[in-house]
Amino acid sequence: MKDLIVLKLGGSLITEKDKDTPTINYPNLKRLAKEVGDAYKEGNFSLVFVHGVGSFGHVIVKKTGINNGITKESQLMDFAETQRLQNELNVKVCKEFLKNNVPIIPVQASATAIMDAKKFEGMDTGAIKGMLELGLVPTLFGVPAYDRIQGCSILSGDDICTYLSKEFHAKRLIHATDVGGVFDSNPKENSDAKLIPEITRENFKEVLEKTGGSSNTDVTGGMKNKIKNLLELKGTKSEIINGNEPGYVKRALLGESGLGTQIN
Amino acid sequence: MKDLIVLKLGGSLITEKDKDTPTINYPNLKRLAKEVGDAYKEGNFSLVFVHGVGSFGHVIVKKTGINNGITKESQLMDFAETQRLQNELNVKVCKEFLKNNVPIIPVQASATAIMDAKKFEGMDTGAIKGMLELGLVPTLFGVPAYDRIQGCSILSGDDICTYLSKEFHAKRLIHATDVGGVFDSNPKENSDAKLIPEITRENFKEVLEKTGGSSNTDVTGGMKNKIKNLLELKGTKSEIINGNEPGYVKRALLGESGLGTQIN
Repeated sequence: MKDLIVLKLGGSLITEKDKDTPTINYPNLKRLAKEVGDAYKEGNFSLVFVHGVGSFGHVIVKKTGINNGITKESQLMDFAETQRLQNELNVKVCKEFLKNNVPIIPVQASATAIMDAKKFEGMDTGAIKGMLELGLVPTLFGVPAYDRIQGCSILSGDDICTYLSKEFHAKRLIHATDVGGVFDSNPKENSDAKLIPEITRENFKEVLEKTGGSSNTDVTGGMKNKIKNLLELKGTKSEIINGNEPGYVKRALLGESGLGTQIN
Repeated sequence: MKDLIVLKLGGSLITEKDKDTPTINYPNLKRLAKEVGDAYKEGNFSLVFVHGVGSFGHVIVKKTGINNGITKESQLMDFAETQRLQNELNVKVCKEFLKNNVPIIPVQASATAIMDAKKFEGMDTGAIKGMLELGLVPTLFGVPAYDRIQGCSILSGDDICTYLSKEFHAKRLIHATDVGGVFDSNPKENSDAKLIPEITRENFKEVLEKTGGSSNTDVTGGMKNKIKNLLELKGTKSEIINGNEPGYVKRALLGESGLGTQIN
């Protein structure tokens, strides 16, 4: 098999994350689908694609509380509707990627994933492995999943990325977000914010003290967890880049590094 | 856990099967979703729901030949688009069931299923089991799936029904089709056709000679295979009923038998 890249496009890129109804950001989605399509044609790599769910997920999860488990029967309907919504988003995302000749195939992680008190315990990956070997681009996304302790919890796109990177020994893991890396202060509030070009186990503590965790926290964790997970990956080079910068996702897929914060 | 029923609604019921573009039969889908919702409320059973894909699947599969495996690269796009289409149908089906208070949760079987030269080898069912225990209604549907020999083949809704009935020791398996059982001649062509009320291992051969297989053959097998699979099920009572008869699906779910052909 060719070298494997795991690419995640954050929910804040492909949806309008702050809307209180599920809304796709079509200009961004179409541009990013084209970038991935161009890179997939020009490059020589296998790809697992993961996307966040933005306004298709966070609104209903916050409203219904299913990330904290099923405590009353009506939440079964919420669990079910949340999954349906994520699949609806994925069907639309896939459509745009297929238009750009990416053989992107949906994989609903919760069909097999098991959570254990909000921790991702694991999922069966035999079919995904087969799809990759065939030359398909399996695509996964954040989902509500069966939790053996609390009934339901959220399996985030970030956790899926880390899990599959380990499982398939990915060469690289690219997280495209709307921020583009880790800064010493919030770049959305402070124009002097400086990008931290590299985070390692050695400087992680110092970075955390500087940044004070993350301003863009969401129901699935936020930046601190993302970095922690990425630091645990051995053998996979990770980078957080800005997916709002035209061309960055394509360039990163084609091998360029240094576009954001590298985590090694 | 309560007694488990596996219900399949055929693709010919919920889609316009003969259309050459994917088209849902909304009047039928809405009526059947209500019947299932009413029965689920009144009755006391666990439910796995499986649906066929009709014009969302058979047209593209026949056109692209992916059921016979991947022999050229362009078929990867066909495999991917076929899966996307099935998920699109399922998202719409789920929407109608949710309106009727059925906590129906999508489970894309091909996320974990493996085929072996067109034979269904198996899939991970841990998450489905958890969902059932929680009180959700897992819903599966025919899908193109990874085949370790030929790259891709079709995992039919029928095969999923048989597999899950065995796996979860289902009490009953109800197949609602547009025919309503097995007849001694084609009921669509012959108004004198007589329903065969029961098929057993003993009279199966005789029945086959009478019916000459099936007139409504499709890419996933047809009636002969359906009966063969049902006869293999031990401990599960099967019945093929007519889903076009208003009330039949509800009555069958609530325990009535004898509405179609029983297979024991």
